[in-house]
Amino acid sequence: MTVSEKMMANAIRALSMDAVQAAKSGHPGMPMGMADVATVLFKDFLKFDPAAPKWADRDRFVLSAGHGSMLIYSLLHLTGYDRPNMQDIRDFRQLSSPCAGHPENFKLDGVEATTGPLGQGFAMAVGMAIAERHLNAVFDDGLVDHKTWVIAGDGCLMEAINHEAVGLAGHLQLGRLNVLWDDNDITIDGGTDLSTSEDIPARYRASGWHVVSCDGHDFDDIRRALVEAQDDPRPSLVACKTIIGYGAPTKQGTSATHGAPLGDDEIAGTREALGWEHEPFVVPDDIKAAWLELGKKGQEAHKSWQERLEGHAEKAEFQRRMAGELPDGSAMQAYLADLAADPPKVATRKASEMALGAITAALPDMLGGSADLTGSNNTKTPSTKPLTKDDYSGRYIYYGIREFGMAAAMNGMALHGGIIPYGGTFLVFTDYCRGAMRLSAIQNTRSIYVMTHDSIGLGEDGPTHQPVEHLQSLRAMPNMLVFRPADAIETAECWALAIKNQNGPSTLALTRQGLPPVRHDVDVNHCEKGAYRLKAAEGTKKVALIATGSEVSLALDVAAKLEAAGHGADVISMPCTELFDSQDSAYKDELLGGSGILRVSIEAGTTYGWERYTGLGGLRFGIDSFGASAPIADLFEHFGLTADAITPQIIEKIG
Amino acid sequence: MTVSEKMMANAIRALSMDAVQAAKSGHPGMPMGMADVATVLFKDFLKFDPAAPKWADRDRFVLSAGHGSMLIYSLLHLTGYDRPNMQDIRDFRQLSSPCAGHPENFKLDGVEATTGPLGQGFAMAVGMAIAERHLNAVFDDGLVDHKTWVIAGDGCLMEAINHEAVGLAGHLQLGRLNVLWDDNDITIDGGTDLSTSEDIPARYRASGWHVVSCDGHDFDDIRRALVEAQDDPRPSLVACKTIIGYGAPTKQGTSATHGAPLGDDEIAGTREALGWEHEPFVVPDDIKAAWLELGKKGQEAHKSWQERLEGHAEKAEFQRRMAGELPDGSAMQAYLADLAADPPKVATRKASEMALGAITAALPDMLGGSADLTGSNNTKTPSTKPLTKDDYSGRYIYYGIREFGMAAAMNGMALHGGIIPYGGTFLVFTDYCRGAMRLSAIQNTRSIYVMTHDSIGLGEDGPTHQPVEHLQSLRAMPNMLVFRPADAIETAECWALAIKNQNGPSTLALTRQGLPPVRHDVDVNHCEKGAYRLKAAEGTKKVALIATGSEVSLALDVAAKLEAAGHGADVISMPCTELFDSQDSAYKDELLGGSGILRVSIEAGTTYGWERYTGLGGLRFGIDSFGASAPIADLFEHFGLTADAITPQIIEKIG
Repeated sequence: MTVSEKMMANAIRALSMDAVQAAKSGHPGMPMGMADVATVLFKDFLKFDPAAPKWADRDRFVLSAGHGSMLIYSLLHLTGYDRPNMQDIRDFRQLSSPCAGHPENFKLDGVEATTGPLGQGFAMAVGMAIAERHLNAVFDDGLVDHKTWVIAGDGCLMEAINHEAVGLAGHLQLGRLNVLWDDNDITIDGGTDLSTSEDIPARYRASGWHVVSCDGHDFDDIRRALVEAQDDPRPSLVACKTIIGYGAPTKQGTSATHGAPLGDDEIAGTREALGWEHEPFVVPDDIKAAWLELGKKGQEAHKSWQERLEGHAEKAEFQRRMAGELPDGSAMQAYLADLAADPPKVATRKASEMALGAITAALPDMLGGSADLTGSNNTKTPSTKPLTKDDYSGRYIYYGIREFGMAAAMNGMALHGGIIPYGGTFLVFTDYCRGAMRLSAIQNTRSIYVMTHDSIGLGEDGPTHQPVEHLQSLRAMPNMLVFRPADAIETAECWALAIKNQNGPSTLALTRQGLPPVRHDVDVNHCEKGAYRLKAAEGTKKVALIATGSEVSLALDVAAKLEAAGHGADVISMPCTELFDSQDSAYKDELLGGSGILRVSIEAGTTYGWERYTGLGGLRFGIDSFGASAPIADLFEHFGLTADAITPQIIEKIG
Repeated sequence: MTVSEKMMANAIRALSMDAVQAAKSGHPGMPMGMADVATVLFKDFLKFDPAAPKWADRDRFVLSAGHGSMLIYSLLHLTGYDRPNMQDIRDFRQLSSPCAGHPENFKLDGVEATTGPLGQGFAMAVGMAIAERHLNAVFDDGLVDHKTWVIAGDGCLMEAINHEAVGLAGHLQLGRLNVLWDDNDITIDGGTDLSTSEDIPARYRASGWHVVSCDGHDFDDIRRALVEAQDDPRPSLVACKTIIGYGAPTKQGTSATHGAPLGDDEIAGTREALGWEHEPFVVPDDIKAAWLELGKKGQEAHKSWQERLEGHAEKAEFQRRMAGELPDGSAMQAYLADLAADPPKVATRKASEMALGAITAALPDMLGGSADLTGSNNTKTPSTKPLTKDDYSGRYIYYGIREFGMAAAMNGMALHGGIIPYGGTFLVFTDYCRGAMRLSAIQNTRSIYVMTHDSIGLGEDGPTHQPVEHLQSLRAMPNMLVFRPADAIETAECWALAIKNQNGPSTLALTRQGLPPVRHDVDVNHCEKGAYRLKAAEGTKKVALIATGSEVSLALDVAAKLEAAGHGADVISMPCTELFDSQDSAYKDELLGGSGILRVSIEAGTTYGWERYTGLGGLRFGIDSFGASAPIADLFEHFGLTADAITPQIIEKIG
């Protein structure tokens, strides 16, 4: 007897409600509502091979409504992925299980992205779809030729970021992106009509999307809609009309099924309503077999793809890129040698452009862009022509005024593989994309944020544009490297480190204003240890000046004044506190230690947090208020960040 | 001879290009492009009285495209506001001038909001329009009955937040909100077609907006469109087709006019093209007189309104609310006394709901909401019925899944006056609305953020939902008070302080999990000094344990173990580091000082920054990685935040 699609879908429903019940927490409503749609997607549309979850040309499937995590755990288990096994599912939401509350890409193959923060899965899928088209254009013979599928809820569509993701996908006409919208009329607070009156399909059409609807519980109708979505050359939104918590006799169709276990009685009633007679965590053999069969389908396609790869002229390069490895080469060393010959006085944003010139020429993986600040962020190079709907081989995206959408798309590209994304905006507008920067850090993506105009040094644009707390607030984020280089050589060194940082994001904080060179040697990448002695005290060391970025040359000026007054002063450049923190204590003590040495930090941002390096007995120079609008020199003077203002305070302190 | 509207508008153009040129930085393109539209708005539509810029029933005008600040400085000067005077405009973008690079509400009357971070002015205007309708419903006789006008650029419309603002305004049918879109086809990177293909009017219509277009350089056509916008019961988008940098002979219509001075030659050419023969910063008398005449028009309306106010039964209450003052009363003291009688073991989010029950009953100014987490943030009380398009008198907004839009709307309400806005989401999603929280801090708005689920203590939802770096990253923000209360009594005290904090925002970080009471006395608001000694050492003091929120009870457990082992330990509750930092050194030294005392911090978040209170010789217990998905007890054990794990490390340290 053939197993019905409904019974296959009910296996998802049962696993979902039982796992949530066992965990005493979780979200059964979405998996139960979207089980039918997901069954059709995995049965007749999605290209995947559970035996090879990292197959480069697999379709990407992103569960943007990440709270419905039991949907993907059920699917991966049923189709035969190595994990999660049934014990993992029984242990849903326990420390021991890879089945976390929200899907985590670093715990399970088959989870393409870490989702939960609403809207971002969708927006990352846009990045995956860009990556797919780009690699399709770059490598011939269809080595990369797949679709990207998303399941998204009302929350994903209501979130701000959705506007940017939809706009970007529509503009780039990402026809292989198909979003299945769980159109169930319910949010946590109740009916969607509590908070929105939007005609969602009309909005999508306004941005160049194709929209089709279906009854999310009618298998043939779902199939019809997915065929239409698949065939349309535009990105598609499939409005799947569903009932949240489908099958739960008294709770279905209400927000009561969204975020809490159904309870024993309701679960018993659901079993009866669905005709599901099996014990919790038991999937009968015939249904399991039907699911496993689906998992086998992709093996054929995978095999034929593998054969094409084996004969492909660019096999090695393709594999290198998909593995995220760097090519051999010395482009950076050659560039550094040139710099050392005649270190220029330039803004570090300009130095970044110069370094990027060398890097993008040597490294085709680099795909850049800016949120409408190309000329200010200095992110475009001669190697990066625009990526457009008419030419996906380009390596530069005009993201528009879409910081959050840009950062999420960058994550999606990095997750897809084959690309090292970088993108720029002003450092202060990390506030606009911080949610995605955090997901870079959680997901271990090599996203590189080029954040210029990194202090009051930007001058006249004033406090809304001048970061004060941003360096420290990004340093506080786990797994994010924040680089603040002091000149052109440090900038190149920091770029090299960001690119080598394969398992996490980096932020480069760069100046608008020109900076004098502070370094002339390039034999060793001094930035690698996060901090180093740039200048040793001439007389007896009394002071250690610790500075970053534009304040390193200021620290050198202060040191000169101190030395002139007979006080020996080290100058320590600290371009990356996180890398410094990870050094052994011998290195740290040698650099910062020494009894009776006054430690002084200088950074044109909040002093909060600098106690870690100066101790409470040290001095901290910075800005603990918002900035102001004025020419740069006036601002540094106003905020007391000049050698004339700082030096006497140090001398007074050392008495 | 009558002064033509074109000549009036050209006065704006001349002041804008000349001020930018003098400052050697700024944005002439937008003011020159929108001068004609702004002239019509101020001449025939905007209700304002330059002699009384704080008149409660004035129309609100928000320049969302804040980089075009010379537009509003010109308008305020020409219509006769006290400031800016011509010297202020000559000193555009200098420290001495209130004419900052971007408009700052705290520097100039008539600037209703600080703008520059794109999209937020528009979204704040939505809040102003909500405030207007609410106060209109609450106070009879039309005491509040005005419009809200916005000038927005392509950037404001492309930004993510625009989606939330548009959705909210459409859902609430804020018909008195009219947005004048500077539809000039240009962004910084070039033509808008570089990055967007959106049919903007169609998107607005999809959200229940009315859309009308006009030629932004044809005065009668502008007038026709504004009449239509004004008369339509829906919020209106007026697409004003303009030429950026209008009048600049070689640069108009290009991004070259956007963000840089035009240059002397181009300015000379513009003078010729516009027929503007006057020296820089000279406005001829007849044109100045025509502008001043406009400024006088509103005086009549103002006078008649003032008469109505004088006779109004609720005059005193209205004035109290618009002044942002608190009423006399002891509701909070009564509530605290009740609490003290039998302090409950509750989550602080629940304690917040209890406090809010008392506060919202006594204080009609409070207008709350949540970004679709009402039942989780515990933000709704019996006094706050929903505010809907059919009943604006409600005091609770179902914001939907719109964190950023909510926070910006809260700023708008606070800026409007008459309302103390509060709104909730999870603490981790401050990342989604941080841009607006920063503008609360810059603008000195009393916005109160109710941020629940404030640590790994939320349990199974896992790392995407568990804040780690958020407390510190918010503490790093100037002028933001971050409160993390330890029990129900501290929660009430912190609420009282947030409400008293008239010139800045507050964030309440609240637990999901239940907490035992740590306080029983309510005579003094101990939270007012930011930190206080909750428990004094019994034996000789060797340790000072400093903790916040849910870790205060943990610190008490640690202290008990230390005392049992013969080590005297203070427990210091530090619900607000910012308030503590502002105490005098005597208080701080007495609380934290003492030679040979080991200082230990315990907070379930990053340890970064705690060196400020423990010194480098102290110990810091926290979480310096992302969290995990598991039941709460397992997580606290996993991350070493138990008395059993902490106590031996302290004992070892004190040897």
